[in-house]
Amino acid sequence: MSDCAPVVARVFSTDERQALYDVIAHRRDVRNEFLPDPVPEDVLRRILGAAHAAPSVGLSQPWDFILLRDPVRRAEVKRAFDRANADAQEMFPAEQRSAYAALKLEGIEKAPLNIVVTCDRTRGGAVILGRTHQREMDLYSTVCAVQNLWLAARAEGVGVGWVSIFDPAELRPVLGLPDHVEIVAYLCVGYVSELFDRPELEARGWARAASLDAHVRYEVW
Amino acid sequence: MSDCAPVVARVFSTDERQALYDVIAHRRDVRNEFLPDPVPEDVLRRILGAAHAAPSVGLSQPWDFILLRDPVRRAEVKRAFDRANADAQEMFPAEQRSAYAALKLEGIEKAPLNIVVTCDRTRGGAVILGRTHQREMDLYSTVCAVQNLWLAARAEGVGVGWVSIFDPAELRPVLGLPDHVEIVAYLCVGYVSELFDRPELEARGWARAASLDAHVRYEVW
Repeated sequence: MSDCAPVVARVFSTDERQALYDVIAHRRDVRNEFLPDPVPEDVLRRILGAAHAAPSVGLSQPWDFILLRDPVRRAEVKRAFDRANADAQEMFPAEQRSAYAALKLEGIEKAPLNIVVTCDRTRGGAVILGRTHQREMDLYSTVCAVQNLWLAARAEGVGVGWVSIFDPAELRPVLGLPDHVEIVAYLCVGYVSELFDRPELEARGWARAASLDAHVRYEVW
Repeated sequence: MSDCAPVVARVFSTDERQALYDVIAHRRDVRNEFLPDPVPEDVLRRILGAAHAAPSVGLSQPWDFILLRDPVRRAEVKRAFDRANADAQEMFPAEQRSAYAALKLEGIEKAPLNIVVTCDRTRGGAVILGRTHQREMDLYSTVCAVQNLWLAARAEGVGVGWVSIFDPAELRPVLGLPDHVEIVAYLCVGYVSELFDRPELEARGWARAASLDAHVRYEVW
């Protein structure tokens, strides 16, 4: 059982901790700052490696990463976005519609690379440790991979924008997804040399972030 | 509009990038290595601050963090876990049941602190930018906060274990949750001086991680 015992845990220095906090603080949801330069294979591999090191329920690793570069396919995705975005605009109160229409909310064609992060709902078999009472845990594991990917990309100078304004049913045939595979995140990915210094929706006056204190509770809700 | 333009993006050094990759690689799902030492207020604040810096759909920040220390309440949670875990064991094929029963899958009472990360499904109003076509985006934002929390904790020498083996309906009254608030993650949190050097489920022979290559696809599934 020597193979199966914990070992002395790696200790992180103050500088290392600060690096992590800085990456977290400087991460942005990128829509318009993408540069056309391709992301080199070794950089992409490190970013995907970070995603693949995410926690997963029962070690099921339900994620896959579909790398999309084909302009024809991306144009189809863009059309699905445009349709949904037109619908979305109508859902807002009349006084917000022109502000909504003025926001750029995707970089599907501007970014040199799109990554679709999927969740295979059948991976690991019928009964998964940790998923017996919460079926959505595989989706949540996949989101953990997305967040790792996002932070790794940021540290590499690569921006990521998560696009969620589309009807997933319209993307399934474009991506050739089988029924048991779900789209969790559609990501636009590419180098950036400029970024907003705070969340873009706040910079543009659309929304305002609340302080941490408003989100901490003790013992009960 | 000068307030509303991107600025030169912070560049991360090779050392800073490596720090992030090391934290990601050394993160573990902790069940049994918790030490009783309390997590100091400033450390906890930094960890929660990292969580609160997560991306959120439409900047809705739907998460809350309920800090649970009360032993009576945690004993109730532990009983909910025990009930579900007994059920779970029966779901596995007969030949896996004794291996399942031998696994320690929670640190609810051993860890000095539990953090329940919730999602307020109503936060930000009826129509949320980015959530118009994918209702689950608020849950996914909350998971991004969990992963930030997990990484920050690891960098601070604090372990985190995500417990998902319970019926959420049993925890709702214990936590006084209103109907519009969902539990996304139940986390056990505390200092660790030892950790497994790879995923514990792999070290214990329960599951085996696949290589990244098995998870990368091109253009289509």
